[in-house]
Amino acid sequence: MFRKGSSVYRDKVETKVKTDDYGNPIKRIRLAITVSNLDIIGPEFWGKHQYILQEGKYRYEYVKKFDDIRRLPCCNWIVVRISACQFDKFSLIHSFDKPNDETALSLMNASASLMMEQFPDIIFGYGFSNEYSFVFQENTELYQRNERLILSSCSSWFTSFYMMKWKEYFPSKELVQPPKFEAEVLCYPKPKIVCDYLSWRQAECHNRNQYNTCFWMLVKSGEDENKANEILKVFFHHLNIFPILLINSLVICCP
Amino acid sequence: MFRKGSSVYRDKVETKVKTDDYGNPIKRIRLAITVSNLDIIGPEFWGKHQYILQEGKYRYEYVKKFDDIRRLPCCNWIVVRISACQFDKFSLIHSFDKPNDETALSLMNASASLMMEQFPDIIFGYGFSNEYSFVFQENTELYQRNERLILSSCSSWFTSFYMMKWKEYFPSKELVQPPKFEAEVLCYPKPKIVCDYLSWRQAECHNRNQYNTCFWMLVKSGEDENKANEILKVFFHHLNIFPILLINSLVICCP
Amino acid sequence: MFRKGSSVYRDKVETKVKTDDYGNPIKRIRLAITVSNLDIIGPEFWGKHQYILQEGKYRYEYVKKFDDIRRLPCCNWIVVRISACQFDKFSLIHSFDKPNDETALSLMNASASLMMEQFPDIIFGYGFSNEYSFVFQENTELYQRNERLILSSCSSWFTSFYMMKWKEYFPSKELVQPPKFEAEVLCYPKPKIVCDYLSWRQAECHNRNQYNTCFWMLVKSGEDENKANEILKVFFHHLNIFPILLINSLVICCP
Amino acid sequence: MFRKGSSVYRDKVETKVKTDDYGNPIKRIRLAITVSNLDIIGPEFWGKHQYILQEGKYRYEYVKKFDDIRRLPCCNWIVVRISACQFDKFSLIHSFDKPNDETALSLMNASASLMMEQFPDIIFGYGFSNEYSFVFQENTELYQRNERLILSSCSSWFTSFYMMKWKEYFPSKELVQPPKFEAEVLCYPKPKIVCDYLSWRQAECHNRNQYNTCFWMLVKSGEDENKANEILKVFFHHLNIFPILLINSLVICCP
Repeated sequence: MFRKGSSVYRDKVETKVKTDDYGNPIKRIRLAITVSNLDIIGPEFWGKHQYILQEGKYRYEYVKKFDDIRRLPCCNWIVVRISACQFDKFSLIHSFDKPNDETALSLMNASASLMMEQFPDIIFGYGFSNEYSFVFQENTELYQRNERLILSSCSSWFTSFYMMKWKEYFPSKELVQPPKFEAEVLCYPKPKIVCDYLSWRQAECHNRNQYNTCFWMLVKSGEDENKANEILKVFFHHLNIFPILLINSLVICCP
Repeated sequence: MFRKGSSVYRDKVETKVKTDDYGNPIKRIRLAITVSNLDIIGPEFWGKHQYILQEGKYRYEYVKKFDDIRRLPCCNWIVVRISACQFDKFSLIHSFDKPNDETALSLMNASASLMMEQFPDIIFGYGFSNEYSFVFQENTELYQRNERLILSSCSSWFTSFYMMKWKEYFPSKELVQPPKFEAEVLCYPKPKIVCDYLSWRQAECHNRNQYNTCFWMLVKSGEDENKANEILKVFFHHLNIFPILLINSLVICCP
Repeated sequence: MFRKGSSVYRDKVETKVKTDDYGNPIKRIRLAITVSNLDIIGPEFWGKHQYILQEGKYRYEYVKKFDDIRRLPCCNWIVVRISACQFDKFSLIHSFDKPNDETALSLMNASASLMMEQFPDIIFGYGFSNEYSFVFQENTELYQRNERLILSSCSSWFTSFYMMKWKEYFPSKELVQPPKFEAEVLCYPKPKIVCDYLSWRQAECHNRNQYNTCFWMLVKSGEDENKANEILKVFFHHLNIFPILLINSLVICCP
Repeated sequence: MFRKGSSVYRDKVETKVKTDDYGNPIKRIRLAITVSNLDIIGPEFWGKHQYILQEGKYRYEYVKKFDDIRRLPCCNWIVVRISACQFDKFSLIHSFDKPNDETALSLMNASASLMMEQFPDIIFGYGFSNEYSFVFQENTELYQRNERLILSSCSSWFTSFYMMKWKEYFPSKELVQPPKFEAEVLCYPKPKIVCDYLSWRQAECHNRNQYNTCFWMLVKSGEDENKANEILKVFFHHLNIFPILLINSLVICCP
């Protein structure tokens, strides 16, 4: 009992129901709830009791039952953050300026503006480098708040806009590789938290920009890329105080 | 008690702790669990007990805690179904043939093939009209099965491929409106269910095609669109047996 | 193509790699992405391409991967509503007074008070008839906000407390049937919504109590139960204005 | 632009609509989509644009919209694992035998049998020490597969049964502390995985029992509890091979 633990299941039990006219017992098999202490590791038990884990038969309609719709909780601001994947490769192929390509950023901004036109419930957008966050108003009923439809259509629309606008911003550069975006969705219950989220992204923008500016200055001055990274790691380790200060102050000052 | 129901909360209670040297009682306020039957509709109670529903103060780091990652359950085939939205308008603007534009379908197929190249874990795709379903292998570790990243990147990639290939398939038609896709994700625990899902989509393809063929034949023969719809409703009502038969048979014959 | 839709998959293709010394072709089978329009309903295609939906082999560790933990979103008040199931039968068996048994309600209150003692993060409880709602403070870290552990332990604790206290409240009645509770969990992002939720429950308490009081008065005066129900349906249909007024007013007056 | 990132929002813009009869411009304020690079950390921007993150007004009915029902995916075996919390303390208070109290285990088994009677869809149960796992059949429609109701009612029922049966198993021991159970729910898509899960629990039972037996033998022989733990850590480190062998073999032998 101690070593095997206890199993409860319905076991086939033969019981004498009655006797026939000649006194012979008439037996019937029925299932009775049974507790026992046996090996359930290995095939023996399961081979003898195949009826227990028997797979069901399904009729056709069940296929549709797998569709479970996820609705984002109401009374929450929805933030969809879109970011370009494999952006290093993409910007290399299309020879974007380093650390920041102004035209590429403008193209991101143009796509974001089109998003706002397309979705009137977007009340704010914030972006830098390869990412853009869109804040939908607290009560948006876009797709009845169906998470998957919001996510997939935002990511598809943004991709579409970016590609449509490419020629306008890069008239002499061909789009040789398709851009690819991923998206995340977040729910924030209070305006203050939306503010803090946006502040966090802007602090991140500042930090990354500072780092990248230094990095590319070093590289352009002849430093090897690995070396540049190492120098900056040491340097920023001491400067660490700065972003932390920034971050702390932002929490206090949000309305 | 019956009409108001019971409320339990911690109430401020004044208790005599001890007496001072002059015999005056020294009192202290403490919170004591209290059951009472009072009105909690309206501002009165809540105004007097503001400490109960007091909002918390948060430090900066909490912003990141909102990120909840959803992983699709393992040992399940993942199906991502992508469908073009507002496709009627899109196909009208780009003057696609009705009921089926062969070039447009070939463009969908070309995009689907690129999806398979891009994602080696896609083992099967099936599409018709404006939709395409992609089956990922049971154990795919794509994005560690993060639902949102799978969904948003599939929908973005498909959009990208469709736009990149447009010129090749429609060399003389300009893409005047950005295409937009939505995506759904489904998890199927057994190969038979994947088969049944695909059979369901093919039965749907057959039905829709039959309907659309008849519809456009009527329209081309001079019938008004509303009239054509009405005629077919009556007609298919009698034919209803056919798709049902089809659907029943498919369940039986899957391996 | 139109009637079958398109399938994309990796097909086994025989290709001539090179020729041997005698000029005979050396062939190899490889998988090539293929688009085709064929029947995927029925066993034929799947029988020939069994490698496509092949089931994986798993090593032991995978069993643990099925455990997906759900955390309730932070910065939300958590409400756990517990309600006794099959309460009509339970109260009949234990001959509770109708419409309200004061001792039974007091037992519910006593259990609720024990809940508050057990879980310091419960800041408010409200109950009537067979249900009790518990409000946890906005930032509770109980079970790290693991939804399943919060739900199952609240429901277990409440059951325990109810049974422990039974003898004290019903010294001369034996507990002949085990009480059973179900629980729901809700997340509210703002204090106002918690207030509105509680107001809703109290309005419900008022309505139900009014109905039940009338119902049992009719029954005790000799009316048959079905008849009593019918009379009240007609009556309350006209009174409907009352609860609606109540409900409207509660929304306005919450702080 | 680089350091601040870009913000998109609808800004209030004054535009001249027309001129009046005297040639004075008639102006109107409208919202125009605007891209700009400014500080969004801190109160300044948000103070001036309070309309952006304005909170909505809600009518009463919204309270019910927070109720999101989670259904467990169909065609999956559902496993509910119940475990007693703070069991060390509970077994100490009620002076259970160490390492295993046969009566206490029998009480667990009796409760499990009652669960099987209560829920005909439970097809198998396995338990040891302070835990019990219940396997529901693949297609159970218990509570329409509503996760929260399944979880909370199983945990409540088990608690009820355990307390009801206490007197029968421990006629001379009073239940001085309420027992408390937590529950987890798991979904397994294939019978083999259910087998593997159960094997994992039985392997765990074996290991824990082995450890506990040795531990209490050492303690009863006069060893201090901390010392006993240390001895066993070293010892089992070498024996580690055994449970791993066991675990490996179980994967192979499941049907």
